[in-house]
Amino acid sequence: MAVLRGVGIGQGVATGPVLHMAEAAPAPEDVPSTVGADAERTRVQEAIAAVTAELNRRAEAAGGAARDVLEAQAMIAEDPTLADEVEERISAGSTAEWAVHDAFAGFRASLEAVGGYLGERAADLDDIAQRVIARLRGVAAPGVPDPDHPFVLVARDLAPADTALLDLDKVLALVTTDGGPTSHTAILAREKGIVAVVGAAEAAGVPDGGTVIVDAASGTVTTEPAPEEIARAAARAADRRAADTAPPTPGALADGTPIALLANLGKPGDAVDAVARGAEGVGLFRTEFLFLSASQAPTVTAQRDAYRELLSAFPGRKVVVRVLDAGADKPLPFLNDAHEENPALGLRGLRALRASEDILREQLTALAEADAETEADLWVMAPMVATVEETAYFTALAREYGLRTAGIMVEVPSSALLADRLLAHADFASIGTNDLTQYTMAADRLLGSVASFQDPWHPAVLRLVAEVGRAGAALGKPVGVCGEAAADPLLAVVLVGLGVGSLSMAPAALSDVRRTLSLHTLDQARRIAEAALAADDAASARAAAQAAG
Amino acid sequence: MAVLRGVGIGQGVATGPVLHMAEAAPAPEDVPSTVGADAERTRVQEAIAAVTAELNRRAEAAGGAARDVLEAQAMIAEDPTLADEVEERISAGSTAEWAVHDAFAGFRASLEAVGGYLGERAADLDDIAQRVIARLRGVAAPGVPDPDHPFVLVARDLAPADTALLDLDKVLALVTTDGGPTSHTAILAREKGIVAVVGAAEAAGVPDGGTVIVDAASGTVTTEPAPEEIARAAARAADRRAADTAPPTPGALADGTPIALLANLGKPGDAVDAVARGAEGVGLFRTEFLFLSASQAPTVTAQRDAYRELLSAFPGRKVVVRVLDAGADKPLPFLNDAHEENPALGLRGLRALRASEDILREQLTALAEADAETEADLWVMAPMVATVEETAYFTALAREYGLRTAGIMVEVPSSALLADRLLAHADFASIGTNDLTQYTMAADRLLGSVASFQDPWHPAVLRLVAEVGRAGAALGKPVGVCGEAAADPLLAVVLVGLGVGSLSMAPAALSDVRRTLSLHTLDQARRIAEAALAADDAASARAAAQAAG
Repeated sequence: MAVLRGVGIGQGVATGPVLHMAEAAPAPEDVPSTVGADAERTRVQEAIAAVTAELNRRAEAAGGAARDVLEAQAMIAEDPTLADEVEERISAGSTAEWAVHDAFAGFRASLEAVGGYLGERAADLDDIAQRVIARLRGVAAPGVPDPDHPFVLVARDLAPADTALLDLDKVLALVTTDGGPTSHTAILAREKGIVAVVGAAEAAGVPDGGTVIVDAASGTVTTEPAPEEIARAAARAADRRAADTAPPTPGALADGTPIALLANLGKPGDAVDAVARGAEGVGLFRTEFLFLSASQAPTVTAQRDAYRELLSAFPGRKVVVRVLDAGADKPLPFLNDAHEENPALGLRGLRALRASEDILREQLTALAEADAETEADLWVMAPMVATVEETAYFTALAREYGLRTAGIMVEVPSSALLADRLLAHADFASIGTNDLTQYTMAADRLLGSVASFQDPWHPAVLRLVAEVGRAGAALGKPVGVCGEAAADPLLAVVLVGLGVGSLSMAPAALSDVRRTLSLHTLDQARRIAEAALAADDAASARAAAQAAG
Repeated sequence: MAVLRGVGIGQGVATGPVLHMAEAAPAPEDVPSTVGADAERTRVQEAIAAVTAELNRRAEAAGGAARDVLEAQAMIAEDPTLADEVEERISAGSTAEWAVHDAFAGFRASLEAVGGYLGERAADLDDIAQRVIARLRGVAAPGVPDPDHPFVLVARDLAPADTALLDLDKVLALVTTDGGPTSHTAILAREKGIVAVVGAAEAAGVPDGGTVIVDAASGTVTTEPAPEEIARAAARAADRRAADTAPPTPGALADGTPIALLANLGKPGDAVDAVARGAEGVGLFRTEFLFLSASQAPTVTAQRDAYRELLSAFPGRKVVVRVLDAGADKPLPFLNDAHEENPALGLRGLRALRASEDILREQLTALAEADAETEADLWVMAPMVATVEETAYFTALAREYGLRTAGIMVEVPSSALLADRLLAHADFASIGTNDLTQYTMAADRLLGSVASFQDPWHPAVLRLVAEVGRAGAALGKPVGVCGEAAADPLLAVVLVGLGVGSLSMAPAALSDVRRTLSLHTLDQARRIAEAALAADDAASARAAAQAAG
């Protein structure tokens, strides 16, 4: 038994057999066989038969169009012309690996030369050749594994493309060796409520098929667990499922202090799930979905209908709608088509809307119309606010349209540093921890080489949150958090200790955060926050909070 | 008389006639002449003669290779083939403007078709045609004016290309209608010690040839000044020249508090001028010049020789050398060749050096060798430090090479927020206000559309400076500023009031800053700083500091 450490996402626990996501292996080299042609021939036959069987099994399980593709791949693997080409190279003294590599590459070139439908199959040949070579080498085939049983996926980090191919129903837990709590894997885990431990470097050494317990609450991966540990983990998982299905209660600390637990939503249709999971309202409704697929801004009518659908799902509840946040990684040609060297530091968010004020005015018009027709408590807020002047501009404009509650996202360091002056104009502040961390650390949150800086636990980020919390308390203005940080249960406690009164997150994260908050009083949360603030770096802050909790 | 307001750069004053930098005018349209062919013929002859004469005058004044180019242009303007083409169009009823435009365009196409040397002259034709058309329209020729007398240049903002063409000896003062105190024009003015007022929008309306007084100290441009005002300005300018040529004294406040005034240098050869202007040492020596033109890192020997040349110029004085700050707008292929969406938030500064540690080690080796051979007090510092861990890494590495004093640039908000913890490891901190402002405001400092955010007077930036000043005082570690802010005399007072003990700037700015510091006590500086900190935005902070001073 060994206990490997990483960073847990959420509070879940799961037990199951490990499968690694294999990296693409280097191409074989043309070295002479040391075992002789007969042995190589047997090896290659076994490998092709195994790959064909696996492809056929997956074809059967997949059904539909995927079935046809996989069956076609299996047929290619058994193609007699290819077998002849492989045999020729083995007879000439090649290894099985080189023979397969070289024969498939030649066949690939011929297919490409033909073009058309056959040409498009060239990529399939690469995939099949890599599968056969991996089998010959006794390593896993590259790409996302697809076994016929539930498993714990161990990977360096998952790219969005991997996620699309992954059958989440079979994934018991995710473990990554690289990547931190804001990696794509972590975000996926929070959104889908998957048990996950990220950044557990030693998990690379766990063999395929070995049973592990993945415990997100403690951030550990236990290898070769004893039967009583497996039983304990199963009992905890059952408790958690029971709590998840119990009717959710409003968010509150152990001493009864209410902490509103809200949902981050990207489209009106997501409201049903959020309500089912006990969201007390919406802390961040992103309006980009209305704009991103369009070549021009949507009409006021189309917008009003979408906002009405959303607001109707939350009668009497708070719904915070963020006006269009375009630019940076979400460019909109009709809003800002200038090339920018650093779009994250460019004309984005409210800056871009001011330059095209008619789009902002139309959005506020649609929001005011939807508000008039529904019973929700609509709050509007502006993204990427950096100055007092911008705050005054946006809140005045919102009031011009009769919108009663207008606030700002705090995601630029200057806004946090001058929060007292911005909140003199704004009705509320909502802290976007992802961008706030990006700017505070000067590290692109989408760039792998600086990912280690992107951690909302960093004491510099926590200090800025504390500034906003203090300003909100002094002025009696609500302060919430709607970034990834709110979905990390222990960090949620820290945020509350820093003066945050509402937390908005992916609905799947609500249950864990609700439970963790209920275990701490406000005094305890403040003490835990102090411990985190006093740390030198993100990891120490997390550890200090764990120790203080 | 009218007094136009902008932001002054430095403290200088100058009087002279205005010349506007003309924007490229729209191309003429093919409309029939309303004055008749004879009148058009006379107009075009006069215009071509005037342009030819102007080109010949400039050729004579320029001398050297530029003379040949300008004389060749004058000859093209008088080319008889071109004259025939123009005449043909005028006879057919064209305006002079269209005839010149169309005839030159046709000739341009023929030259391009020939290629070679003649093909390369095609761009000259555009320039000549635009000059002739501007003359016909009675507007200034596009581009930088080049009269035969000193003048006050009024422009929207100067691009680096304009600066290269500008004869600075004839420029009495620069006035821009756009752009702020960190614009390219402002940086140029500080570096060269040119009197400048930027962001004076109304200056666009001052006619060419009108006399103005440009007063950087008050940030004003006075049109149609009375003779006694001109005399007063001349007297002030004479005083200032006298002060500039007096032997410089060490920087100090009115109460005697010493404030070290240091130079920002980009190559060893700049040291002579800095010493002549009274620099008490070097606060920022940029080492990029050794690397930027190279396809690989320079040798230890080449580096050592350059550092030795620098250090030899400052025996017994402090010289702060920044290790290579590559990345962002200064990419180096051998250090980081990955494409980054936001290079300013990418693998730059110390981050890039850590990824290529041998380059950093070689630089420290060369610095240690040069240090051993010279008498200067060498301090080394790392750029783009964001964390305690990076600080500990760099200072430990510097000490490994026997470098006694190792510190950090504070230009990432997190470093300012955690300055007390970083200074526990570093021997000193030097605040880079340009980048610190960029990250604090989340606004690219090289992007025009967000230039209004890039102002080191912003109270959020001042708060971060105050954090570093406080941490330095608490731990007894020196804190300096080496960004553009240090060269703004009033802002320099504010920085000192926030706890900064040394200011490093372009040598041309030393004199103004020295004089302004000598007029304020430390208590006054603190009061002025408090007034600036309490403001809502950069302009109010500047105004509050002026009022409090």
